[in-house]
Amino acid sequence: MERSFALRGDIFFTPQYDKKTSCPSSWLVVIDGRVEGIYEKLPGRYSGLDKYDYSGRLIIPGLTDLHIHASQYQFRGLWMDEELLDWLNNHTFPQEAMYCDPSYAEKAYRIFVDDMLKSPTTRSCIFATIHKDSSLLLCRQLEESGLISYVGKVSMDRNSPDILIEDTAEAIKSEEEYIKQVRSSFSRVYPIVTPRFIPSCSDRLSMALGELAVKYDIPLQSHLSENPGELDWVSELMPSSSSYADAYDKLGLWGRVRTIMAHCVYSYGREEELLENSNIYIAHCPDSNTNLSSGMMGARYYLERGCNIALATDVAGGASLSMFRAICDAVRISKLRWRHVDQDLKPLDFTSAFYMASKAGGSFFGSAGSFEPGCDADILVLDDSRLPTMLDGLTVAERVERYIYLNPDGSVLHKAVQGEWLF
Amino acid sequence: MERSFALRGDIFFTPQYDKKTSCPSSWLVVIDGRVEGIYEKLPGRYSGLDKYDYSGRLIIPGLTDLHIHASQYQFRGLWMDEELLDWLNNHTFPQEAMYCDPSYAEKAYRIFVDDMLKSPTTRSCIFATIHKDSSLLLCRQLEESGLISYVGKVSMDRNSPDILIEDTAEAIKSEEEYIKQVRSSFSRVYPIVTPRFIPSCSDRLSMALGELAVKYDIPLQSHLSENPGELDWVSELMPSSSSYADAYDKLGLWGRVRTIMAHCVYSYGREEELLENSNIYIAHCPDSNTNLSSGMMGARYYLERGCNIALATDVAGGASLSMFRAICDAVRISKLRWRHVDQDLKPLDFTSAFYMASKAGGSFFGSAGSFEPGCDADILVLDDSRLPTMLDGLTVAERVERYIYLNPDGSVLHKAVQGEWLF
Repeated sequence: MERSFALRGDIFFTPQYDKKTSCPSSWLVVIDGRVEGIYEKLPGRYSGLDKYDYSGRLIIPGLTDLHIHASQYQFRGLWMDEELLDWLNNHTFPQEAMYCDPSYAEKAYRIFVDDMLKSPTTRSCIFATIHKDSSLLLCRQLEESGLISYVGKVSMDRNSPDILIEDTAEAIKSEEEYIKQVRSSFSRVYPIVTPRFIPSCSDRLSMALGELAVKYDIPLQSHLSENPGELDWVSELMPSSSSYADAYDKLGLWGRVRTIMAHCVYSYGREEELLENSNIYIAHCPDSNTNLSSGMMGARYYLERGCNIALATDVAGGASLSMFRAICDAVRISKLRWRHVDQDLKPLDFTSAFYMASKAGGSFFGSAGSFEPGCDADILVLDDSRLPTMLDGLTVAERVERYIYLNPDGSVLHKAVQGEWLF
Repeated sequence: MERSFALRGDIFFTPQYDKKTSCPSSWLVVIDGRVEGIYEKLPGRYSGLDKYDYSGRLIIPGLTDLHIHASQYQFRGLWMDEELLDWLNNHTFPQEAMYCDPSYAEKAYRIFVDDMLKSPTTRSCIFATIHKDSSLLLCRQLEESGLISYVGKVSMDRNSPDILIEDTAEAIKSEEEYIKQVRSSFSRVYPIVTPRFIPSCSDRLSMALGELAVKYDIPLQSHLSENPGELDWVSELMPSSSSYADAYDKLGLWGRVRTIMAHCVYSYGREEELLENSNIYIAHCPDSNTNLSSGMMGARYYLERGCNIALATDVAGGASLSMFRAICDAVRISKLRWRHVDQDLKPLDFTSAFYMASKAGGSFFGSAGSFEPGCDADILVLDDSRLPTMLDGLTVAERVERYIYLNPDGSVLHKAVQGEWLF
């Protein structure tokens, strides 16, 4: 059987946001790309499988980055002293405009995909740019990498530099062509409808995009309530809406299909619609929300109420595409929020942040990001022996926490997606 | 001449908190371990010097970590879900007690010193433990590494586990012996008087330590106003004091010698003594203040008022000993503080955070951390070509910002201290 094997090591995963499971020195059995089970001793019926012995290494599920801008990767870690709207106009838009040239896009996306491949991320939901051909080049490179991705050709027809504004009719047509081409060309890369955010999309464009998502039954991604300046702008643009979420709803973009809303920093107490529509996935982007001075979101509030809330890097608002950083940063800012904003909302702990980066994000793709039977076998093998310490007797969970805190760059020894080893 | 050379590359430093200096493709001339000058073209009078051509590489000053616990390095990145006082009792104190065994200390400090050597830090102010012999072993290893360090044998005689409590008279005697031995044995490692913090030191011990610092004319380091729980405790212990700083003053520990006070998160508006005593150096520890849920300090307030405020990792409250992380984290939390706590205090920018990590911290040692003429030649050479990007035409300052944001682990190509190359 293809993509079937037994893997031995110190296994860790989080079946719930408040539950971690550790299996020291155990066998993870994968059949046909899916997790069959975990066993202290390999049952005889699996003795014919290929075996990989990573004794002493850590084995965790692959992570999902629910919101990242591939086209911003070239300027990660730059111009961090600016706030969101200035940063968009001064740097982001001019850089994204470069992707009108497919040969530039080919080279730039190569850098992004190479780094993504090495990272702890196995699945991601990506913004490209408005340029259809360049976006298809990104899809091609991701397909070949073995990673699983949703890639959106971005739609925008107002309030942006001329070079990033599409004609509305053309934008709708181009989006539909893009959807069809991605569906017909790739098996691991899927299209996702991507209105940038309300300020960049006319009502007509937004409504047409919502209809396309429903027509082709594909998901949708956008931004919600990231920054106070942005909120004010949306209020001006949609004066009859009671909230930013309500504005999306009026445009037919609110959770008719599976929908990622990135950020939601200012949704708390204001956009209860997040709690009510099970098609909405919140992408919490702690590093980006910090770098762009957006603010600290109360992630635990949504976790405890059963919302879909997962983690994301939001490169290049986030400086790094490492989901290890996103895990630690989510814990960190939740502590500062607890201390300074609201002591009634407990901080995240490591388990809950790991859950958001693994199973919660993976649920957008079906069942990935966990090692429960039936889950897709997305696997990371980590070598924590390269981080010396005198401590012995650490539990598997402690070693995973330590590895993730001490490897902000996200180094991974081996990586498999749906039971296929990428390295 | 020894430790004299000319070094070519893209040079960056910050002579003031609001001023950065970039010298693309220039020569840094070092004579006898000190900076002589920077020149676009190497003057003829220096033509006889050894030359190092690092064209295309970045050259920045070595960084100072003003507050780090070497004895906590073994558990960096662990148990991050606990707050300060629990974390001290559950993990920190039991771990520090292990250093009563010099053979344990020898091995554990080896791991610390090896990593410190590779890091961007050239100078640091270190807490060891209460154990004199083990602390001297740390001094020996640091001396041999070539790094420049203040190392304190920690003093504590109350409110701690039995195994970490010294007899008061013994603690005073042991501290004096330690001071004499460090002074007579080492040339790059200096003693620093180290009362842990008020809860751990009786009044008698504190007062005697203050006298020892004055008698031997050596600096002193401790903790101030880190966490609300700690503040309450100090108020109970010193009911007649108007503030935590005032309590130190009453004990004779307030700035009679150069004095590092780590944290000062809750000093703002409460301990104006910080602004008034030029012997006080604030060690701002952003990652530790975040991990231990302590809070966000208003660093810019002190910078703008001409205080000595520098950066520190505070391992193991901080997860990493990389000062690159401390720079980025200082900027990050200042933005969140601006957003959520006080919009009258502007966030730090990259330049000011870099200044705190370099020249401000270096000033504790005399004049290090800058490339102005006469400064000690502490030098880092960085290779940013290993971080691919399509962007060209980035300025030197942009490349330094990018390198530091994208290298949280702190990798460095070459490193010199006072003109001596360590690697």
